[in-house]
Amino acid sequence: MTIRLGIVGLGKIARDQHLGAIQATDGVEFVAVASRNAALDGVASFNDIEELLSSDVPVDAVSLCTPPQGRFTQAKAALDAGKHVMLEKPPGASISEVHALEALAKKKGLTVFSTWHSREAAAVEPTRALLADRKIRSVSVEWKEDVRHWHPGQAWIWEPGGLGVFDPGINALSIVTRIMPEPFHLVQSDLFFPENRAAPIAANLSFKTSSGVPVAAEFDWRQTGPQTWDIRIDTEEGPVVVSHGGSRLSVDGEQRVVEEDREYRNLYKKFVRLVGEGRSDADFSPLVHVADAFMLGRRHAVESFED
Amino acid sequence: MTIRLGIVGLGKIARDQHLGAIQATDGVEFVAVASRNAALDGVASFNDIEELLSSDVPVDAVSLCTPPQGRFTQAKAALDAGKHVMLEKPPGASISEVHALEALAKKKGLTVFSTWHSREAAAVEPTRALLADRKIRSVSVEWKEDVRHWHPGQAWIWEPGGLGVFDPGINALSIVTRIMPEPFHLVQSDLFFPENRAAPIAANLSFKTSSGVPVAAEFDWRQTGPQTWDIRIDTEEGPVVVSHGGSRLSVDGEQRVVEEDREYRNLYKKFVRLVGEGRSDADFSPLVHVADAFMLGRRHAVESFED
Repeated sequence: MTIRLGIVGLGKIARDQHLGAIQATDGVEFVAVASRNAALDGVASFNDIEELLSSDVPVDAVSLCTPPQGRFTQAKAALDAGKHVMLEKPPGASISEVHALEALAKKKGLTVFSTWHSREAAAVEPTRALLADRKIRSVSVEWKEDVRHWHPGQAWIWEPGGLGVFDPGINALSIVTRIMPEPFHLVQSDLFFPENRAAPIAANLSFKTSSGVPVAAEFDWRQTGPQTWDIRIDTEEGPVVVSHGGSRLSVDGEQRVVEEDREYRNLYKKFVRLVGEGRSDADFSPLVHVADAFMLGRRHAVESFED
Repeated sequence: MTIRLGIVGLGKIARDQHLGAIQATDGVEFVAVASRNAALDGVASFNDIEELLSSDVPVDAVSLCTPPQGRFTQAKAALDAGKHVMLEKPPGASISEVHALEALAKKKGLTVFSTWHSREAAAVEPTRALLADRKIRSVSVEWKEDVRHWHPGQAWIWEPGGLGVFDPGINALSIVTRIMPEPFHLVQSDLFFPENRAAPIAANLSFKTSSGVPVAAEFDWRQTGPQTWDIRIDTEEGPVVVSHGGSRLSVDGEQRVVEEDREYRNLYKKFVRLVGEGRSDADFSPLVHVADAFMLGRRHAVESFED
């Protein structure tokens, strides 16, 4: 069976990643788009998901690429109409709403897939396997990029719910929660808010694993020049470094994995498999860490940010 | 079997509520206390939980009455030592850590009881039963009290993780999550921080249930004079009012439940039952709503607060 899919929210991430990935994936057919002020040639186009769902264009599933703040209403409408749902990261604006979606999908026998594209980067699964057999001493995450380059004019990321620097930082957290052999939790959080913005531009976080291993993370949106998306794991057997956003792995100083980016193609492949098997994949732990970072966060005011 | 119990953290809440409730409960025997700078006549006294656990005083369970910021390490030590754990509210400083505790207790076959004393107030269960059969139009929560009266000199509540006005507000949330027939999630959050404090003194929250019913909550720590702990539910059949922190219920204008406070005795009764049945009770949804309120919160600066 081929999944007839509608995309909701034809913004930057949908155009940059989803459209190409869908085209390259067997078992999924792109049939409709719902997006304010945007349409695509060759597929049925609607202004919003309600129009799409009440039309006579048959869809089996929707992929939500809208900003997280409005995601719940769309996902709920889709599930109520009997459609499977794939969620861009972060899966929603609140933990409570994504729990409610998961429960609703379960009740209706539908698939909800809370995607974390960075988990599909080539080095992630090899690192997970490697760390299962090592003694970890500490972990250090540096996720530093230039917001002007990656989010030009995206006002919603600076609003409450837009998460600020946690929008990229949650990618790091999605990798660390996957590769670590035991859970970890926040013990200290410092958040840096531009004076004119409602979301942080930088964050310094200290976690500990349940057995006490320190995990430090620095997220910063003010980095110009070379960008840094690195996770260093100091193990008794030697250093393990996951770099370039999860696509490269170096073990004890030796390069192991360098692969081309297949993140979004993997996500759609997985979605096809989940729907086929009647299962959901709803791990919200990266968003939980972000909520914890806000709840435990000490706020510091920094220089205003102008786009 | 009688549960031999140790109390960790002999502060205000332990003295005001726990000691008397334990004494009044069959099936639990108070044998030890672990608390910095505090001891009790007639029971073995230790400086901290590590001393207690490594002593020759046998305990089956511990009740943690310490501030939430240090709770994880204590609970983990107790579970590792094979002890059941009862947690004062809030159950921890982060969602991630309480999830980890729940998983650890499950793995070890031990009971963890995340208590919400306000849920034991007399009007809560009757209201839950009543609302299951009514059509709810809206909910409005007012939780307003005088912090100087209820938390004199408690510096930790103003620190990150201390939660500020959510320390009482989470009691309201523990009731609302129990009485409502469907889940709800945050859509807007305004947080009011005194200029000299790291935690909010007031909060205005707008939630919606999954089907769209509005739930509004106002928490304020600046109320002198009469104190307000009320939940008003507007239903098609008439108004339902849960007042006085959950101890009074009025239905369609008629008073139904007025009972003396038995909250903490009910908690210990429930703990004895959970341990006997080998079960846990770990509903963290009130803390999840608080984390959401911080993550989605728009921060407003207000007048400095001096104790």
